[in-house]
Amino acid sequence: MEKSKFKFKSQIRVRNYEIDWQGIVHNANYLLYFDVGRVAYLEHLGIKVDINSIQHESKIVVARNEIDYFSAARFGEVIDIYTRISFIRNTSFAFEGILEESKGQRLIAENTCIHVWLDQRTNQPTTVSDSFRKLVQQYEGNNARITWPSYLV
Amino acid sequence: MEKSKFKFKSQIRVRNYEIDWQGIVHNANYLLYFDVGRVAYLEHLGIKVDINSIQHESKIVVARNEIDYFSAARFGEVIDIYTRISFIRNTSFAFEGILEESKGQRLIAENTCIHVWLDQRTNQPTTVSDSFRKLVQQYEGNNARITWPSYLV
Amino acid sequence: MEKSKFKFKSQIRVRNYEIDWQGIVHNANYLLYFDVGRVAYLEHLGIKVDINSIQHESKIVVARNEIDYFSAARFGEVIDIYTRISFIRNTSFAFEGILEESKGQRLIAENTCIHVWLDQRTNQPTTVSDSFRKLVQQYEGNNARITWPSYLV
Amino acid sequence: MEKSKFKFKSQIRVRNYEIDWQGIVHNANYLLYFDVGRVAYLEHLGIKVDINSIQHESKIVVARNEIDYFSAARFGEVIDIYTRISFIRNTSFAFEGILEESKGQRLIAENTCIHVWLDQRTNQPTTVSDSFRKLVQQYEGNNARITWPSYLV
Repeated sequence: MEKSKFKFKSQIRVRNYEIDWQGIVHNANYLLYFDVGRVAYLEHLGIKVDINSIQHESKIVVARNEIDYFSAARFGEVIDIYTRISFIRNTSFAFEGILEESKGQRLIAENTCIHVWLDQRTNQPTTVSDSFRKLVQQYEGNNARITWPSYLV
Repeated sequence: MEKSKFKFKSQIRVRNYEIDWQGIVHNANYLLYFDVGRVAYLEHLGIKVDINSIQHESKIVVARNEIDYFSAARFGEVIDIYTRISFIRNTSFAFEGILEESKGQRLIAENTCIHVWLDQRTNQPTTVSDSFRKLVQQYEGNNARITWPSYLV
Repeated sequence: MEKSKFKFKSQIRVRNYEIDWQGIVHNANYLLYFDVGRVAYLEHLGIKVDINSIQHESKIVVARNEIDYFSAARFGEVIDIYTRISFIRNTSFAFEGILEESKGQRLIAENTCIHVWLDQRTNQPTTVSDSFRKLVQQYEGNNARITWPSYLV
Repeated sequence: MEKSKFKFKSQIRVRNYEIDWQGIVHNANYLLYFDVGRVAYLEHLGIKVDINSIQHESKIVVARNEIDYFSAARFGEVIDIYTRISFIRNTSFAFEGILEESKGQRLIAENTCIHVWLDQRTNQPTTVSDSFRKLVQQYEGNNARITWPSYLV
């Protein structure tokens, strides 16, 4: 992934209990780190991610995750989490993430995470909200490929 | 994925603490279920997966994970985990997995998980062991594409 | 704890990712095992524990946990979880639990877990429901010290 | 617990996936927060806690945990973790911990965690090392009750 396209960075530190018996972070835990990055990103854009959001008309679910592992994170290491939204289509959008060890900038893992916007009542995909599209476009500019639904154009 | 190619099935039951605040299993936890399936698969083939294995010459690391989410697993549901090895190449091999809710056979998620065989001392990729190749070929037969290193052919 | 007082047993098997870098189950994970035991116990008594219960008038929260660790559980071991309710008072009740390695009956850990019954609206302790008290008394008999609220006597 | 006796404070922020379906942090996760606090405390005193330590002559295991829950931590809250060592005896020592929501100083939970010093070869309790005792005494002063083995007095 092109790191230069990422404008947002958050950080975590690898915790004791995230280490498995091989002495490295268990492969599922990196998904949790990317999750932390996405929540921080959304908050930075002014989008609240909390339990009350699920009362609203729409909800967002994860449809696909891809993770490439380059080197293992180790106990105590500070990890930079780079997060961006790379595209928004009609009913879906994609987060990309990069994990790097902070000091030496050692590449740890990359993630693409596709989300789908669901209608809360029918549980069927529905159009990503305009307000979300606008907030992301304002923040990402040309780095994100944002398709506007045809009725808007 | 073609379920008919899977010969091995294990089961877990969704636990209380695996449910997130949306009332469904958190997306990272499915990776843990696939992990449970792989460990059971390897044990079924007579391959021990434990902390002592890491003293040996080689170790196995996860290089890539792909997960497609089809429907959410819910608290208390019994989940069938289908596991197989789909290919073995020179220094890598792939696990595939399917999660289905057991009673209604509702598709929950699919996973492809690429592993790389590393030399314990150099930490560099090395040839997948012959004994592993043989055990998998015996079990999977024609369902797995197994490439033998050229010196063997 | 007196094992003879426990009538209910469930089982789990130690999973790969529950093992920490010392090669043993991380001390917090035992709480998850006891949790599995409690959920199974309540289901056995016909009490549903799910996300929809929280819509009801009352909810149950954990007020205190005590865990004594006797020996570490290891990867792949099958663990017997013994669970019982040892007392019900006015607004609180106690679960006890024992973890034993199944084959050799090696004692792993013991847990006392105090729960408090809360009014969903005020978030204040309220009287444990009669129906719960009855179900537990029927199952536990004299093994549980169950105090009935004075208005009932 | 007397907060004034605690000299060391670390912080975490409640993460998305630590929230259960009741919308609050699952009761086992607080043990993980206290663990984060203990590791940070030990590092602050110059004691390395890592996978290589287990190659040494002695290891440290958790023998008992007590947790009192006062109010639930919620998503996104910043939590102050207060950590201290309250006593060191012959072969054991105790950590105490307090969790408080950072902004409003709302008390969340308290923990006492007893550790035992084991001989790596025999797996039997052995005397807590002098160097550890000294480091803690220097830091905690009179707040910690530290018993020196009789041969030292």
